Amino acid sequence: MLSRRNFLKLAGLSALGAMLFPSHKKIIAKNFGINMNSKKLTLRYKPYTLNLKHVFTVAAMSRTTTPVMLVELEYDRIIGYGEASMPPYLGESQESVAKFLSKLNLEQFNDPFRMEDILEYVDKVETGNNAAKAAVDIALHDLVGKLVGQPWYKLWGFNPEKTPYTTFTIGIDTAEVVKKKTEEAKEFKILKVKLGKDNDKEMIEAIRSVTNVPLTVDVNQGWKDKNFALDMIYWLKEKGVVFVEQPMPIDRVEDHAWLTEKSPLPIIGDEAIKRMPDLIKAKGVYSGVNIKLMKSTGLKEAYKMWAIARGFGMKVMIGCMTETSCAISAASQLSPVVDWADLDGALLISNDVFKGVEIIDGKVTLYDKPGIGVVKI
Amino acid sequence: MLSRRNFLKLAGLSALGAMLFPSHKKIIAKNFGINMNSKKLTLRYKPYTLNLKHVFTVAAMSRTTTPVMLVELEYDRIIGYGEASMPPYLGESQESVAKFLSKLNLEQFNDPFRMEDILEYVDKVETGNNAAKAAVDIALHDLVGKLVGQPWYKLWGFNPEKTPYTTFTIGIDTAEVVKKKTEEAKEFKILKVKLGKDNDKEMIEAIRSVTNVPLTVDVNQGWKDKNFALDMIYWLKEKGVVFVEQPMPIDRVEDHAWLTEKSPLPIIGDEAIKRMPDLIKAKGVYSGVNIKLMKSTGLKEAYKMWAIARGFGMKVMIGCMTETSCAISAASQLSPVVDWADLDGALLISNDVFKGVEIIDGKVTLYDKPGIGVVKI
Repeated sequence: MLSRRNFLKLAGLSALGAMLFPSHKKIIAKNFGINMNSKKLTLRYKPYTLNLKHVFTVAAMSRTTTPVMLVELEYDRIIGYGEASMPPYLGESQESVAKFLSKLNLEQFNDPFRMEDILEYVDKVETGNNAAKAAVDIALHDLVGKLVGQPWYKLWGFNPEKTPYTTFTIGIDTAEVVKKKTEEAKEFKILKVKLGKDNDKEMIEAIRSVTNVPLTVDVNQGWKDKNFALDMIYWLKEKGVVFVEQPMPIDRVEDHAWLTEKSPLPIIGDEAIKRMPDLIKAKGVYSGVNIKLMKSTGLKEAYKMWAIARGFGMKVMIGCMTETSCAISAASQLSPVVDWADLDGALLISNDVFKGVEIIDGKVTLYDKPGIGVVKI
Repeated sequence: MLSRRNFLKLAGLSALGAMLFPSHKKIIAKNFGINMNSKKLTLRYKPYTLNLKHVFTVAAMSRTTTPVMLVELEYDRIIGYGEASMPPYLGESQESVAKFLSKLNLEQFNDPFRMEDILEYVDKVETGNNAAKAAVDIALHDLVGKLVGQPWYKLWGFNPEKTPYTTFTIGIDTAEVVKKKTEEAKEFKILKVKLGKDNDKEMIEAIRSVTNVPLTVDVNQGWKDKNFALDMIYWLKEKGVVFVEQPMPIDRVEDHAWLTEKSPLPIIGDEAIKRMPDLIKAKGVYSGVNIKLMKSTGLKEAYKMWAIARGFGMKVMIGCMTETSCAISAASQLSPVVDWADLDGALLISNDVFKGVEIIDGKVTLYDKPGIGVVKI
């Protein structure tokens, strides 16, 4: 018999996590007990709170932490790591993710290679819950990659030398703070600027006063008028901006199609394009898509979305939430085939718990390690 | 030094093949010589002629043989097998395929895992040549699967138990011959009937006089009028037909869209949908797509086409030309996720040179063997 303390340790559950969700202890214990000596898939999870290095401000709000759920999927004594990140505005939380994960019966699967079946089952347990689904998908990819002994970028046939430079995000703030942040971001070859409040031009001018690197702009639906948007985009192009993300509210489909047709810069859909069906509808509305694992339900659908976007002749960027190096390393597997990457999520936190992909001189740097290529710190 | 005879044997070249294409001997010799002790990709190929068990008649013509090109891709003493099949009406030949393959410099790649780069290079060497490109793609998939030690259906995450029953094709012939062929095809749970000449109803009646299994119909562009087509499809539905392939000429886009909207059976595009861009245009025109490796340039694009078709809500069938078990086994890797399979190509020939996927009681049967899962007979 395991002592409670040792059980919790072995199960990868912090005492805090177990206390937060006492109702899930039994399920986890059951899973864990059964898996000790059998070849079944066992799921474990614990809530974790990411501490941000700086206050993070977008068009809608400011915050200093991001709640995540760390997931482990074990099979034959090999552990795959996954993660769900739940920025509050997307509607998921540690509670909702734990509730969703507690409903899963992955023990019914005794072959992790049947990823299509497993993830289809997970997807059908309940609608929504995209980040929770992504956590399982990432852990399953990590597990299968480890069983095969190869990283996913290799199994997909991608060239790791072709990884892009990641953008580094400069949040909305006063000119002084923006200048300071930009100076601190000297390592990065391309910056992402959050716009959509009332100081857009001031933000850009502040950054331009200290650097000449290319900029990308994320408006997070902050602009409300298409003519204003088009004028701003012409101005931004002069300032060395290379694309504009989600300029207007996502229900403005006609306005976005109009803007995409007239814009001198690519218009990238983010909040408007979560999963495959959204992407199908985005043809002709946006020039490109920001694929994020927490929206797409993970790597499986993200790969398919990349293929579809390319079939449509659309630009592709791969993005992230604030995440540990776990989810960032998963997303990075796709990065050799995208136009732009926004994978600074793990750089923004002070309490990462994984080591995986690294950002070296601003470039996403993949290592030849199986699965998603992470180890626990 | 190798004697000419031993060289040809080692290089996998029949003396006949070498004599047919003397100009390629030097290139092959060069490749082969260089590869003996180094980790580079080496391509070899030889023409081969498949003998059909029965005269094969479609709407356009009859024939008794099919020319193919057998391909080997070697890396670090591991060999991947590939194949191009060139039914004459598709415009490729042993000569055109040899010419295309002779232009490739795959030695520039020293890592077979960089499939996306390698196949993009191959695709750009010249337009068209889809079967020739498929041969390289299949050989590369076989090679990489062997290096990883896994079959592709597993790397894609598919469940091998979900393989479909294959259709078995009954060519256009007299009622007597059709009855005889149908009786001989008792093993199969679903038949594919070639229509589009002047005896469509006679063909169906002849088959229905000896069996009640579900039928699929391939018109190969044989019908010229949309109203006639719709009437026929209503009649065919009554006779237990489950879908109709390429009813009218491929340039009748509007007519096909009209038919797809009105038809009580799915309308599957075949000749109209070769590659990804054709599939993008086929949304709303066809209910489904027949993906064939010789059209799609191989497995890489076939997988992407499957993902796109599903995104569009389209039906997917996987088809083939007359091929050895090499190309059939490659296509079969995708078969667990399609609605229908038409993978009888290797059953129609009397001189197969590979053993791989098998058709057992009509069902596509995958084995847990690396790559595309074939061995030379």
